[in-house]
Amino acid sequence: MGVIVPITQDKPKMAGIENLVGQMASDMERVNAMILSRTGSEVTMIPEVANHLISSGGKRLRPMLTLAMAKMCGYEGEGHIKLAASVEFMHTATLLHDDVVDESDMRRGKVAARIRWGNEASVLVGDFLLGQAFKMMVEVGSLRALDILSTAASIIAEGEVAQLAAAQNVKTNEAAYLHIIRSKTAELFAAACEVGPVIAERPEQDHIACREYGLNLGIVFQLIDDVLDYGGSSAQLGKNVGDDFREGKITLPIILAFAKATDPEREFWQRTLGERDIQEGDLEQAMAILKSHKALEGTLERAILYGNKARDALADFPDNEIKQALFETIDFCISRAS
Amino acid sequence: MGVIVPITQDKPKMAGIENLVGQMASDMERVNAMILSRTGSEVTMIPEVANHLISSGGKRLRPMLTLAMAKMCGYEGEGHIKLAASVEFMHTATLLHDDVVDESDMRRGKVAARIRWGNEASVLVGDFLLGQAFKMMVEVGSLRALDILSTAASIIAEGEVAQLAAAQNVKTNEAAYLHIIRSKTAELFAAACEVGPVIAERPEQDHIACREYGLNLGIVFQLIDDVLDYGGSSAQLGKNVGDDFREGKITLPIILAFAKATDPEREFWQRTLGERDIQEGDLEQAMAILKSHKALEGTLERAILYGNKARDALADFPDNEIKQALFETIDFCISRAS
Repeated sequence: MGVIVPITQDKPKMAGIENLVGQMASDMERVNAMILSRTGSEVTMIPEVANHLISSGGKRLRPMLTLAMAKMCGYEGEGHIKLAASVEFMHTATLLHDDVVDESDMRRGKVAARIRWGNEASVLVGDFLLGQAFKMMVEVGSLRALDILSTAASIIAEGEVAQLAAAQNVKTNEAAYLHIIRSKTAELFAAACEVGPVIAERPEQDHIACREYGLNLGIVFQLIDDVLDYGGSSAQLGKNVGDDFREGKITLPIILAFAKATDPEREFWQRTLGERDIQEGDLEQAMAILKSHKALEGTLERAILYGNKARDALADFPDNEIKQALFETIDFCISRAS
Repeated sequence: MGVIVPITQDKPKMAGIENLVGQMASDMERVNAMILSRTGSEVTMIPEVANHLISSGGKRLRPMLTLAMAKMCGYEGEGHIKLAASVEFMHTATLLHDDVVDESDMRRGKVAARIRWGNEASVLVGDFLLGQAFKMMVEVGSLRALDILSTAASIIAEGEVAQLAAAQNVKTNEAAYLHIIRSKTAELFAAACEVGPVIAERPEQDHIACREYGLNLGIVFQLIDDVLDYGGSSAQLGKNVGDDFREGKITLPIILAFAKATDPEREFWQRTLGERDIQEGDLEQAMAILKSHKALEGTLERAILYGNKARDALADFPDNEIKQALFETIDFCISRAS
């Protein structure tokens, strides 16, 4: 998309997650088998809907983080497999419910489940997966991990409702926005990371460090998603460019542009996002305004900042292959928009 | 409504749940306070939506059963309060999601939350309540209770999906229908009852007995609900008479009538329920057909049968005030349709 990052910034390398994927490959195979077995049901619509989404090629970043953290913390048991699968189920349930909320037509480059099976199936299969997620956590038997993940479930829903309440309010400020994305996106990254040191029975400070890494990586992830919504290709994004715009979502690029807006621009944002009166050519004009105020660059700058916080959080862990892969994951998330 | 029960049957007394309510009053006050405190959120839409439903005068039968079972089993701790509140939250979440699935306009005699706040809010506040339910269970700290309730959450969703798949299929048989209502309704009654002996650390046979009571009571409850849908008043039911008919739901009264149907009647059911082509006067005709085949009486007879099973399940518990109140609760559920 060609966002220009000022040279004075730490420009992230184009980076991949191959290193993380490679190191977690054998454990991820077990997680995938677990996922497959736990979507099984004699009610055939359940595996159909669940697998439509689960097998559609998401990166499975969140469960990989659970595995990586457990491994980095020296965990040698079996519980990380089920916890990782739980984390992916929680994520999938959120996606299914989000599609109903957003009235999305596409998800991960495929037709959204709600279009193919109806809103009902999306809601109920999401509920089924949440139930299965908790069942797996219970099987692992760590009350602390259960506490972290059930708290995350509440906070995620709270963040989604807050986003609903903020939608169409063009006066949403950066602090309110950050609060929302912390809850709706970053909290699950944080929880996915925190349960690693928890089941490895590491001291409290390691829980905090891993959680901080996840939380900041999650913020990076969402900021970049918000940038891509105004500039990625449909294929890269797996959903339609301009979805946030059409849904009246107030994301950071909008907030930054609104702060610098001329009077006619404020009127434009009020009409399109505030009143959702969107006409032919409005998306193009929105993108032109964002460009003129360098709003996507501003968002990317903040992503880099949070990426640095994620990196700093792991300072006390010894340098090793896994830590290196976790650092590369930060760069990967940022480089999606570079 | 005037269903006539054959005299040869055990005709249930008109009965109330005042006895149960009275004995559980002080604990229920604590459950209500817990419910109120756990719907709190700085995101104001959450308590608004949650309390719209929670404060709308449901009987809170399920949490009362948890309290009663814990008490009957001699439990003296504090965990039953949070478990009872969890059970009510799971139920409320199900109702919120059901309304989206059924496209209902009314719930407990009030406008459904989805009409007032939108489908999105119903889905997300339901998710929030599920998260809070699990948080409370974790606080109680019984992995066994967590297992029972998380398993129930999966089974409930599975039952709802199965119902979705069976909708409009006029050839659904009694066994398939029973399997669905066991899952979607009776399972939560069963789980609500089972956690009582579990936290009281009673022997396994008591877990099974309490669970059996709850499961059979839940079946009674749903059978009577299905009867009332074709004969209760809107006020008695808290929803619209004929909702099941309009939604193409195949319930036991329909299955019994379909088994005895004439050819024109089969065509009628196929058009109205199978194809959901419903015209003026069809609901009245459906009710007339159900009457001619005594389909509501047949459903009520089965409810009485399951009520007896619920009663038998408690045979090994000593006779006392609580057991008496639990028996009266069975009669109460049946007498709603008598």
